[in-house]
Amino acid sequence: VRLSQLAAESGTSIPTIKFYIREGLLPPGRVVSPRQAEYDDGHLARLRLVRALVDVGGLSLAAVREVLAAMAGPDGVDRAVGVAHGALSPKPAATGPFARAGEVVELLGWQVDQSSSEMAQLEAALAAAAQVGLPLEDERLRLYGTAAMTIAEHDVANVPTWQRDDPTAMVTSVVLGTVLYEPLLLALRRLAQSDAYQRRR
Amino acid sequence: VRLSQLAAESGTSIPTIKFYIREGLLPPGRVVSPRQAEYDDGHLARLRLVRALVDVGGLSLAAVREVLAAMAGPDGVDRAVGVAHGALSPKPAATGPFARAGEVVELLGWQVDQSSSEMAQLEAALAAAAQVGLPLEDERLRLYGTAAMTIAEHDVANVPTWQRDDPTAMVTSVVLGTVLYEPLLLALRRLAQSDAYQRRR
Repeated sequence: VRLSQLAAESGTSIPTIKFYIREGLLPPGRVVSPRQAEYDDGHLARLRLVRALVDVGGLSLAAVREVLAAMAGPDGVDRAVGVAHGALSPKPAATGPFARAGEVVELLGWQVDQSSSEMAQLEAALAAAAQVGLPLEDERLRLYGTAAMTIAEHDVANVPTWQRDDPTAMVTSVVLGTVLYEPLLLALRRLAQSDAYQRRR
Repeated sequence: VRLSQLAAESGTSIPTIKFYIREGLLPPGRVVSPRQAEYDDGHLARLRLVRALVDVGGLSLAAVREVLAAMAGPDGVDRAVGVAHGALSPKPAATGPFARAGEVVELLGWQVDQSSSEMAQLEAALAAAAQVGLPLEDERLRLYGTAAMTIAEHDVANVPTWQRDDPTAMVTSVVLGTVLYEPLLLALRRLAQSDAYQRRR
């Protein structure tokens, strides 16, 4: 399709698309005449991913470039999701090893990258709770872990089949899911708490 | 106890305690001699709440004052928890009615204050997901709702008995739980996602 049509289909202005191409976030179109280039579904999918990272995730262009580079690398989607999760979170001060987080993950029986940004996030959350003496017994950790896994398994099982082998679509939906379902989950937990308190009285 | 002992037991410096008293966040001690005042367990509990709100929740002094005023009012804990939740969240642009959030809460069968800040948060999360076309079928909402309720019921059931009739202790533990367990839950969800993806392959 032409540039104007790509703009219409993606809801992105022509100057913004040209900016992404200049910045290397979007490959240039296939030149079909001196004044015209053709764009395909790959461009549209890539454009959706860039918009998700920039507009919804609030990532810097440098961070978007890192996600795209990770997607092109040998570990593809896994590595790109990790990089995107890292960029979506405030930078943790520590770089591991994450001793307490490691224990929790072992308690839950999960196989995860021990040095990932998610582990840093878990370690920070555990340390903050311990510092103010908030109880974190194994029973509570198992309950939270089970609830988190129920949600994660549903999310992973519901990635549409056509996205499974398409790294761009996969990373887009994981990033959108992280940024958009997290506030949803927190709002529901607070509302559930209100309901549970009222029913107790 | 003396001021010095209150400082030691609460881990708060004497100047900070004096500042809280001047600002009306902490009642003055009972005067026992011209140069000496006595403080009791009520002061210690109140000090813990103020520190939780300020240090952990990052609330402004004005917001802390609102939470304390709500606690003293007729609806006590419920209202104070609502005010604290509101102060802990970025201010929502809308003020209701929250139509879509209302539908979701009805779907889940929860009894909650329809105009609360939690409802505003839910409405904003639903709108953001809808805007980028992220699927939010009833099945997914029920699954998220069930997971959130499982956690909330555990949290509510595990409030120590001695706190039940002590508004200060109750609000302290709800605020700490909100601020400290939320990052924990999000970290676990991201890790669960990593584990679920890897097991799928």
